[in-house]
Amino acid sequence: MTRLPEDLLPALHDALGEAGLITDAERMQSYLSDWRNAYRGQAAAVLRPGTTEEVAAAVRLCAQAGVALVPQGGNTGLCGGSIPDASGAQMVLSLTRLKRIREVDVANATITVEAGVILQQLQDAAAEVGRLFPLSLGAEGSCTVGGNLATNAGGTAVLRYGNMRDLALGLEVVLPDGRIWDGLRGLRKDNTGYDLKQLFIGSEGTLGIITAAVLKLFPALRSLTTAWVALPSPQAAVTLLGQMRGLCGDRLTGFELMSRKSLEFVLRHVAGASDPFAEGHPWYVLIELSDTQPDAALNDLLEQGLGEAFEQALVLDAVVAGSQAQVEALWALREGISEAQNHEGPSLKHDISVPVSRIPDFIARTDRALQQAFPGVRVVAYGHVGDGNLHYNISKPPGSDDAPFKAQAEAIMRVIYDSTLEDDGSISAEHGLGQSKRAAAQHYKAPLELELMRSIKQALDPAGLMNPGKLL
Amino acid sequence: MTRLPEDLLPALHDALGEAGLITDAERMQSYLSDWRNAYRGQAAAVLRPGTTEEVAAAVRLCAQAGVALVPQGGNTGLCGGSIPDASGAQMVLSLTRLKRIREVDVANATITVEAGVILQQLQDAAAEVGRLFPLSLGAEGSCTVGGNLATNAGGTAVLRYGNMRDLALGLEVVLPDGRIWDGLRGLRKDNTGYDLKQLFIGSEGTLGIITAAVLKLFPALRSLTTAWVALPSPQAAVTLLGQMRGLCGDRLTGFELMSRKSLEFVLRHVAGASDPFAEGHPWYVLIELSDTQPDAALNDLLEQGLGEAFEQALVLDAVVAGSQAQVEALWALREGISEAQNHEGPSLKHDISVPVSRIPDFIARTDRALQQAFPGVRVVAYGHVGDGNLHYNISKPPGSDDAPFKAQAEAIMRVIYDSTLEDDGSISAEHGLGQSKRAAAQHYKAPLELELMRSIKQALDPAGLMNPGKLL
Repeated sequence: MTRLPEDLLPALHDALGEAGLITDAERMQSYLSDWRNAYRGQAAAVLRPGTTEEVAAAVRLCAQAGVALVPQGGNTGLCGGSIPDASGAQMVLSLTRLKRIREVDVANATITVEAGVILQQLQDAAAEVGRLFPLSLGAEGSCTVGGNLATNAGGTAVLRYGNMRDLALGLEVVLPDGRIWDGLRGLRKDNTGYDLKQLFIGSEGTLGIITAAVLKLFPALRSLTTAWVALPSPQAAVTLLGQMRGLCGDRLTGFELMSRKSLEFVLRHVAGASDPFAEGHPWYVLIELSDTQPDAALNDLLEQGLGEAFEQALVLDAVVAGSQAQVEALWALREGISEAQNHEGPSLKHDISVPVSRIPDFIARTDRALQQAFPGVRVVAYGHVGDGNLHYNISKPPGSDDAPFKAQAEAIMRVIYDSTLEDDGSISAEHGLGQSKRAAAQHYKAPLELELMRSIKQALDPAGLMNPGKLL
Repeated sequence: MTRLPEDLLPALHDALGEAGLITDAERMQSYLSDWRNAYRGQAAAVLRPGTTEEVAAAVRLCAQAGVALVPQGGNTGLCGGSIPDASGAQMVLSLTRLKRIREVDVANATITVEAGVILQQLQDAAAEVGRLFPLSLGAEGSCTVGGNLATNAGGTAVLRYGNMRDLALGLEVVLPDGRIWDGLRGLRKDNTGYDLKQLFIGSEGTLGIITAAVLKLFPALRSLTTAWVALPSPQAAVTLLGQMRGLCGDRLTGFELMSRKSLEFVLRHVAGASDPFAEGHPWYVLIELSDTQPDAALNDLLEQGLGEAFEQALVLDAVVAGSQAQVEALWALREGISEAQNHEGPSLKHDISVPVSRIPDFIARTDRALQQAFPGVRVVAYGHVGDGNLHYNISKPPGSDDAPFKAQAEAIMRVIYDSTLEDDGSISAEHGLGQSKRAAAQHYKAPLELELMRSIKQALDPAGLMNPGKLL
């Protein structure tokens, strides 16, 4: 382990108190690996400041000592962005004690929360005042607002409400030198210079530490309908998406695509899962409509849209959920895919996006290239098709060994990312880069873009102490 | 005039051709002052490149020669951002020849356009494929997409669709050294590093020159209703806004506030304008609901919402437009304010925003402070109350001379901006800083925020040749 300046830990102890500093190896463990145990690092200490001022003090002390910091929220990321390296010279700075909801301003439709607030608590706080905070994703029970902002989190409601970036009006950020930037303004229009908050959102803690945010609230939804729809092809899904959007407008708040293979895995491995249809179909979409009106005729609208699509042979079959239990059962089919796939051996996950119009070509071309190069691998393709975002995950050929498949991981990734690039797509649609996709980003992003990113990093964090080894 | 390097103009002529270079003093005139004739400058030449490559060549040649560039679109800005200084050493770079619509991708709900496309042409191109491009503002017949992006334009549809920033997915930018950054991706999710496009949007040409953009399209609206509503106070307007949003959700696409004084000026000076009500009321809002459904029961919804508000004494009177002609007549009352005010002598314009919840306090407090310091001045307050954005404009006391009033302009501005700051507001909600608000921004923005902005400017345009003297 690199030696720390002798007076740093005592100074941190003075600044953060007993509750704010962990140096005990045992107690540090849970901060040193992610929830999947896919990444593991070492740290000189774990800092747990309780206020923005304490975050600032910790950052200032570490900056003066030249010690690198790894900001961490709920530690639910998929790319190792919140895990320190193996040197033991870095420190983890956990934001989980900053959990105050500072203000709810119903008339301004905003809520001001600290970085450590859990997403679900934020959703609940909005619901308590009859409003909606729309960001929704699998980890919402444990991920934090700070992490959501630092990674520009996406999820299933992006189709209507956008990514986390679109939901933020103002930020409070501790800069790499420990100064606090108070950008906590709840304004929907402010054209007085560069929009600084945009720099920090999605920067994965490499430019500063987000400690609080002003976020948008939306009107509560009072009616909802959900349908499970069988389709012949991804092209049918894209066409149906366009038609349903034209018909339903903003009422269309969910449009999730799944391949037959994805559903098969769920039916095989998830207890209680059952196929909504008697026979199998090549593709499915889960459609959700919602409205602020309590008695909106959403089912009529859905049936009109699906009826027209049925006549055009875009839709093979469809079922509309008749109860809340059925709604949950349909969503469970969609949400069970990731877990179900783990039962089929190691799965290689790719979180890509392309323009929505390219989805059908992308899937056909990439499937073909993979089967040619790696016969028998199974493609589990599903995702937020309305955002052009596919989780294009790969399982090994049935009955084959894990080791040779795992050895092909890099080569399989290349095929998929090369194909993504052909469609001007993104190799990380919503998960970020962290550690795991950093090298791929260096390879796939344009050199000029990387150069611009580095010049921003240099301008804001010249000492390179904010989450080094991540993103860039 | 500062002397140019001898070979620069010939080199620019070679690169841009006859159509791309204007040096004749007469022909340059229209590029050297804004449409209101409020700002006037001098230029060594006006460059009119016809393609992105020509923009790049021009920027490269000027960068090598150390000559500063002033990018210019439709020249409809209100803050002098597109007008060169008086030295005659700068060059105007007009984007108006870049007017191609490069691609319409209906399935991806995107359109790719060049910077010189007029906003109205963009709206029309969207309508031709049955889609909506929602940005809407007074200058839409002559402002350009590049200018809209460079100033993060707002307008009347921000309530539902956001500012120009929210409508852009990708950009093509010529950097200060003449290299082209191709960020023209039509992706709704892309978390592969810093979101570079955010830097250029709203930067008023000080970091690079936007040459093209991928923009979002929305479903076309097939029904619409408009109401003119009388209210006792701004507080009633804010309360009504919350109630109508809760009731109507995304159907609420317009909510404009106007004071009685604003309407009086319109009634007095705009031909054909008539008061929708027999008696005067202190405040008004213009409400617009719209829907993708052709037969949406918007009037029922409007009447339900207004009926409840009437019982709560939030609403004093209301009229719903019964025809397209009436819709236009109501909007003409709102849109006529700015012009009408000019007939009352010089008007001091302030484009501020505060949190929506603070609007009532802001108006009461600022009105009071102004009357105390400048008895008799007339406040013409109106604007996009759903965005917290007020055009808080001042006319001289009736019958008084222009000169003493104009001499008070700075002092009046201070009162209004000081008051804005008390509510954590913005001194330029949608018009940008340009030349006119640069000094005020230096005074009113936090020093740390200005320092961060300068470090970004230094990182991207170290030579300071991109629109110098604007914004920063």
